Amino acid sequence: MLEESRKEEVEYRVLGIDPGLADTGYALIRECNGTLVLQEGGLIRTNSQMALTCRLREIYEELMKVMESYKPSVVAVEDLYTDYRHPGTAVLMGHARGVCLLAAARYGLEVINYSPARVKKSLTGNGRASKGQVKAMVRVTLNLREEPGSEHVADAIAIALCHLRELKFRK
Amino acid sequence: MLEESRKEEVEYRVLGIDPGLADTGYALIRECNGTLVLQEGGLIRTNSQMALTCRLREIYEELMKVMESYKPSVVAVEDLYTDYRHPGTAVLMGHARGVCLLAAARYGLEVINYSPARVKKSLTGNGRASKGQVKAMVRVTLNLREEPGSEHVADAIAIALCHLRELKFRK
Repeated sequence: MLEESRKEEVEYRVLGIDPGLADTGYALIRECNGTLVLQEGGLIRTNSQMALTCRLREIYEELMKVMESYKPSVVAVEDLYTDYRHPGTAVLMGHARGVCLLAAARYGLEVINYSPARVKKSLTGNGRASKGQVKAMVRVTLNLREEPGSEHVADAIAIALCHLRELKFRK
Repeated sequence: MLEESRKEEVEYRVLGIDPGLADTGYALIRECNGTLVLQEGGLIRTNSQMALTCRLREIYEELMKVMESYKPSVVAVEDLYTDYRHPGTAVLMGHARGVCLLAAARYGLEVINYSPARVKKSLTGNGRASKGQVKAMVRVTLNLREEPGSEHVADAIAIALCHLRELKFRK
């Protein structure tokens, strides 16, 4: 009876991803009874001397390892770029993003998209906040000793936090 | 002894792919002692009502099935778009192309890229040939009863033929 009445502590784990061919940032944030904890943040960095196919395989396989290690409940990524000042770069980013989405889909996870402005607004109250403001808010929100060193990891954290806030508002 | 002296007939099989989010064309052409045969041509069509993640998974998994069925020696695709009149479409195509390249890489295949102009020039002698000219040359080269119904399948055949011709010139 005791066993039955003991409720499993339900943890919600969000994997934020900032896809890029050279640098893919990721961050796993878990929420447990209202407390947010940065479980892991990291960078998948590929060598520009390698063939595009090898770089994509590396991103896919590293991301699969991350999902296997941290078992996220959901994946959050930024919407497709809406700003195409450098279409060539955007198309390459599309390759990397496609591979990230595929990894999530093959792992059976739902993927939620947020626009960059929504991520900034959710974190700082201002949809046009600077990268520095976002980094500072990430540090404060998660009570980190210092700001994330990599911009891509900071972006991955920000998108995961955005998703957790949006969920809270909906409740 | 007879067994040892009997040479394995070496068949070279090229899988041409024309990646696209809505329609990915593919074609398997095999060359056996100088004769070119269209083994299979097909279209992976995804439903625009489905989530992007599901569409990418479908492209990946269908392409994996094609590779398992026909065991290509190599994959040939067109270079990255150089023309970005519709950057949004190009980024989505990038997602699909990334997933196709990943499938090839995870299947252990080399991927060769050719520019659209090189494909046209290789087939028709003119780097600015029309789609109609390419289709007609595809039909004649492979001795098909009719032209491929789908433009994407025709493009996939054309890129595979281009690779086979380039190989021949190099020899």
